[in-house]
Amino acid sequence: METLLGHRTIRKYQDKDVPDGLLKDLVNAGTRASNTGNMQLYSVIVTRSDEKKARLSPLHFNQPMVKTAPVVLTICLDLNRYSKWCRINNADAGVDNLLWLMNGTVDSMLFAQNICIAAESAGLGICYLGTTLYNAPEIIAVLDLPKGVIPVTAITLGYPAEVPPLTDRLPLDAVIHQETYKDYSDAEIRALYRDKEELESSRKFVAENNKENLAQVYAGVRYKKADSEFFSAKLRTLFEEQGFL
Amino acid sequence: METLLGHRTIRKYQDKDVPDGLLKDLVNAGTRASNTGNMQLYSVIVTRSDEKKARLSPLHFNQPMVKTAPVVLTICLDLNRYSKWCRINNADAGVDNLLWLMNGTVDSMLFAQNICIAAESAGLGICYLGTTLYNAPEIIAVLDLPKGVIPVTAITLGYPAEVPPLTDRLPLDAVIHQETYKDYSDAEIRALYRDKEELESSRKFVAENNKENLAQVYAGVRYKKADSEFFSAKLRTLFEEQGFL
Repeated sequence: METLLGHRTIRKYQDKDVPDGLLKDLVNAGTRASNTGNMQLYSVIVTRSDEKKARLSPLHFNQPMVKTAPVVLTICLDLNRYSKWCRINNADAGVDNLLWLMNGTVDSMLFAQNICIAAESAGLGICYLGTTLYNAPEIIAVLDLPKGVIPVTAITLGYPAEVPPLTDRLPLDAVIHQETYKDYSDAEIRALYRDKEELESSRKFVAENNKENLAQVYAGVRYKKADSEFFSAKLRTLFEEQGFL
Repeated sequence: METLLGHRTIRKYQDKDVPDGLLKDLVNAGTRASNTGNMQLYSVIVTRSDEKKARLSPLHFNQPMVKTAPVVLTICLDLNRYSKWCRINNADAGVDNLLWLMNGTVDSMLFAQNICIAAESAGLGICYLGTTLYNAPEIIAVLDLPKGVIPVTAITLGYPAEVPPLTDRLPLDAVIHQETYKDYSDAEIRALYRDKEELESSRKFVAENNKENLAQVYAGVRYKKADSEFFSAKLRTLFEEQGFL
């Protein structure tokens, strides 16, 4: 519980390697997570080489951790292994569809989060790279992923060289609903986001970006609609080409 | 780490409630998980009432835990809250697309897994309900979920009344790839799945279902292609109706 509550995203790492035995222990902890029908629809690609990091780096928009962390783990949904097992046993896996795309995504994220918690409990630090889905086709090429294997997230891993403050969260009431979903009035939304908006860092973002408020920074600068539509189209093409859509 | 390695799916619960304060602590631990841009694209619906459990039960194919667990948590990706915050601030969230559907799925699964680990570290037991995606439209109706809120998984929660054995996993080498994906030869697949196939429980499944091997039980009985295609079509309609596809 202490590990969960103390989670910080670590972007600066010590110049100290993560031993392979420890890494295996972390991945083993990952595999103990619940998964769909115990079919383990995931794989992890371990990147330690400078050459691969250099190729992955621009695909993660040059976030420096990709090159400075000793290890990058690319977490993939993997329907290839299960499909092959079915094929050589004269069975039709039947996983070329949206349900299994989602099952694989769920499995791989529970696997990923267990790895991260195991890492933090061993004194390591992690940073998730949400950029993975943006450039999934290019990452597939760099890591030689076959059909049915799609990178969903990536994690940089290493011994922390910083202890950043805990980041803010919405009040707990924002995310809990009793029995049915209680939709939010405008006033409730304003109340739930007030503390976030009044953070010093938020005020700074708003001023620096010359916007009226924090939501405009999020929607107009950090996560622009046009960008989301561009990357969605890429993702859709990938899913269609692989038969999931 | 001990909690992670000791995970068992619990399907039988003591007749003992989960106090609301404890439940809030678990959800709070959930919110400490990493998430996309700290936008917390998730909500959890807490089901304690017999009436709601009775309505959810058939949607989870009458798995008994839905009625016998004191609490069912339905974990949803939630783009509604963020969108409303943007709208009242004259910003266009731009989340009606596939990228954000995936971002929300990722966020909600990291949130879910933290809740489960917190629960287990507090002596509770959990069972994920992968059936949630099968009947998402009907669950949306039961829980009054607005547009932009989609149930991705559900968790039954309570004090364990059983200690089942640890379930098997593939050898660790099956899921780890160094630098690039090393695709599996038929012989490698056979070797990786051999222990699973030789389990007493697997042999029993094969015999009971009158199949030649375990893969045929998985693909032909437990997870039939026709069923997956049926539920995929439902899911696709839901995603299209909500503007994600």
